[in-house]
Amino acid sequence: MSGYNVAPLENLVDKFEKMPGIGYKTAQRLAYYVLNLSKTEADSFAQAITDAHEKIHYCKVCCNFTDQELCPVCKSEKRDKSTICVVETPRDAMALENTNEYKGLYHVLHGAISPLNNIGPDNLTIKELLNRLGDDSVSEIIMATNPTIEGDATAMYLSKLLKPMGVKITRLAYGIPVGGDLEYADQVTLARALEGRNEL
Amino acid sequence: MSGYNVAPLENLVDKFEKMPGIGYKTAQRLAYYVLNLSKTEADSFAQAITDAHEKIHYCKVCCNFTDQELCPVCKSEKRDKSTICVVETPRDAMALENTNEYKGLYHVLHGAISPLNNIGPDNLTIKELLNRLGDDSVSEIIMATNPTIEGDATAMYLSKLLKPMGVKITRLAYGIPVGGDLEYADQVTLARALEGRNEL
Repeated sequence: MSGYNVAPLENLVDKFEKMPGIGYKTAQRLAYYVLNLSKTEADSFAQAITDAHEKIHYCKVCCNFTDQELCPVCKSEKRDKSTICVVETPRDAMALENTNEYKGLYHVLHGAISPLNNIGPDNLTIKELLNRLGDDSVSEIIMATNPTIEGDATAMYLSKLLKPMGVKITRLAYGIPVGGDLEYADQVTLARALEGRNEL
Repeated sequence: MSGYNVAPLENLVDKFEKMPGIGYKTAQRLAYYVLNLSKTEADSFAQAITDAHEKIHYCKVCCNFTDQELCPVCKSEKRDKSTICVVETPRDAMALENTNEYKGLYHVLHGAISPLNNIGPDNLTIKELLNRLGDDSVSEIIMATNPTIEGDATAMYLSKLLKPMGVKITRLAYGIPVGGDLEYADQVTLARALEGRNEL
């Protein structure tokens, strides 16, 4: 496509293409969308990126993203401060928050242990988690890392690290997803669902 | 999701969500991607948006996007100046350019006539197209608008407008797409393919 190589456009397409789940065709579509914005809209888009990046940082306590010193959950008086739910990413915390079932606090690890990707315990916010267990206010830690090899390994690593501190460690239940179809459930999930069966 | 409502983040998610084909979940994923960029990367992303918007405008002749006065196709000595291919969007021109088969010039209408969406002939770059036909250098105009009701209507409108000027008007062939499956071709396409059959 030498004919229409417009440098600022190609540059923008490149930026979009680097985003997760965005291929070249979609990146092109997004870049053309930007070109068709009004000047005000384009400026406010660029500003939103700079703003988000400048104003948002980790919450001092739970390491979730916030634009304040403490995130709204850590600051809230209404949350149960005796339970901490450990998740890999802020989006996982958001997913749990959307259930409206969980009233405790979170801790965001910002990743999972993954030797293949050179991510060890030191790359996660484990030190910050340990700091929260100084006094005896926390009685339960729920491991809500992803049900993957990395997530499981991280949960195991943390539970070994934290158990000596006398805190109860739990893990999200494995099983068949609600609304799913037994026929399409993989065998590992089915085996776990059998294993964890409940009396009716 | 009152718990984690971080204003600059929500603002960025909003911007992404307005883009074509991007839903809330994807917008979130993109926003978190931006948060995880380095400061330099985020700044250059914002800059790319501003740049693209400031530096790119319509080519004086064909109305395609360019950062110069003339786009590379209009400027090129090697292109056949006697043929103009009329397309709806710059991406359509790019798709044709990628075939490496077409050596003529383009004209980008920036849309198609669509009374339902309040787009009439005056909203397209038809005046610019007429200006290009002043001398007798152009002998053929290929209508490459989309094979939709709007695209067909635009092609019909233009051909009625241009025929009196003594220029040959052609339309892209309809037919079954290469690599497609007859079984799945819709009946209109099949009928057009029959109609336009060629001798082997």
